[in-house]
Amino acid sequence: MHKTVTLDMATSVLDENRRLARANREHLKAHGVRAFDFLGAVGSGKTMLIERLAELMRARNIRAGAIAGDVAGDDDYRRFRKAGLPAANVNTGKECHLDAHLVEHALDELDLDLLDVLFIENVGNLVCPADFPLGAEKRVVVISTTEGDDMVRKHPAIFRDADICVLNKADLARAVDVDVRVLERDFRAVNAHAPFLLTNARHGDGVESLLDALME
Amino acid sequence: MHKTVTLDMATSVLDENRRLARANREHLKAHGVRAFDFLGAVGSGKTMLIERLAELMRARNIRAGAIAGDVAGDDDYRRFRKAGLPAANVNTGKECHLDAHLVEHALDELDLDLLDVLFIENVGNLVCPADFPLGAEKRVVVISTTEGDDMVRKHPAIFRDADICVLNKADLARAVDVDVRVLERDFRAVNAHAPFLLTNARHGDGVESLLDALME
Repeated sequence: MHKTVTLDMATSVLDENRRLARANREHLKAHGVRAFDFLGAVGSGKTMLIERLAELMRARNIRAGAIAGDVAGDDDYRRFRKAGLPAANVNTGKECHLDAHLVEHALDELDLDLLDVLFIENVGNLVCPADFPLGAEKRVVVISTTEGDDMVRKHPAIFRDADICVLNKADLARAVDVDVRVLERDFRAVNAHAPFLLTNARHGDGVESLLDALME
Repeated sequence: MHKTVTLDMATSVLDENRRLARANREHLKAHGVRAFDFLGAVGSGKTMLIERLAELMRARNIRAGAIAGDVAGDDDYRRFRKAGLPAANVNTGKECHLDAHLVEHALDELDLDLLDVLFIENVGNLVCPADFPLGAEKRVVVISTTEGDDMVRKHPAIFRDADICVLNKADLARAVDVDVRVLERDFRAVNAHAPFLLTNARHGDGVESLLDALME
């Protein structure tokens, strides 16, 4: 959001987004689809977590699909397709976050009647997406130990609104000299109730617990 | 930048930023200060690279200062102060990037006559800062191996305009299964000339070469 945009304009953009997010939510609900928004910096491991969750869901007969949000390219989209997920690719171009309008169009590309769950992977960014709900039931914020132990303090807004916080690449904490307890303490300071889960997506550690937290 | 902002308004914001960036550049030049903009995702290692560069500069009698840009908090600012650097802290609040106007104010907090070099560390974000020059002489884009080997493909704009690209945490490439050659190839596809340097800031590897490239 740029400085010189007047407050009224900014507010109307956010209001309109909220209205569209509610419409997406109703649309998903009408088709019996539970949607989960995945937020996190680029490289935090969002795509790989979704790949692992999709494997576990398949074993539980849960039919999952995905929307891949990126500034450019279709790397994540192709990964989802390779993992057997019906998927839609959304390139935001100059925008640094998905909005409810982009998601509305992506929903049109998917046959929602064939899905039980929809993953919405946002652009890798921990600032702007905070203001743009998309219509998902839960918002999962993913951080990686390799990002340093000041991650939560630097982005309080996004952690305050998280329904689940995932600390991924937990196995690398020692290699990058990061104290997991600092991150958990900072998270608890802004969010008293949401689960704080450790995962290592590459090896699948902790993904079962994440699935349980999502489906609860 | 939000969708419903008209093109004219967006253009005027960018024009005004460019005008202020030119003024910052003249202001820095008048005081004999060379400024280097550090961009990269959160956790890529920008702050630690600047700490290491400052150590080497001290040995070369180069007087360095820093501007720490973050959405919230003063973690990086305190690290710069602890490293002996005159520093200014800039919190962007809802904004996901520094702009030339914020930097203009930060410059007022520093005694430029006591500096030869100024590091400007942007907010951890690889999208929006691309459009906002700040007045620096060179733009350094820092990525970390832990962010995955699709980093460049996902953010072509920021790499196209880079004067130096640093691949940090190079020692962790194998642990996170990332092929350094893929990143370099993708970088070369959008930027034919800028140096592509490998570093490991924690242990100081490659920082001397980065310093040489900066001061060239």
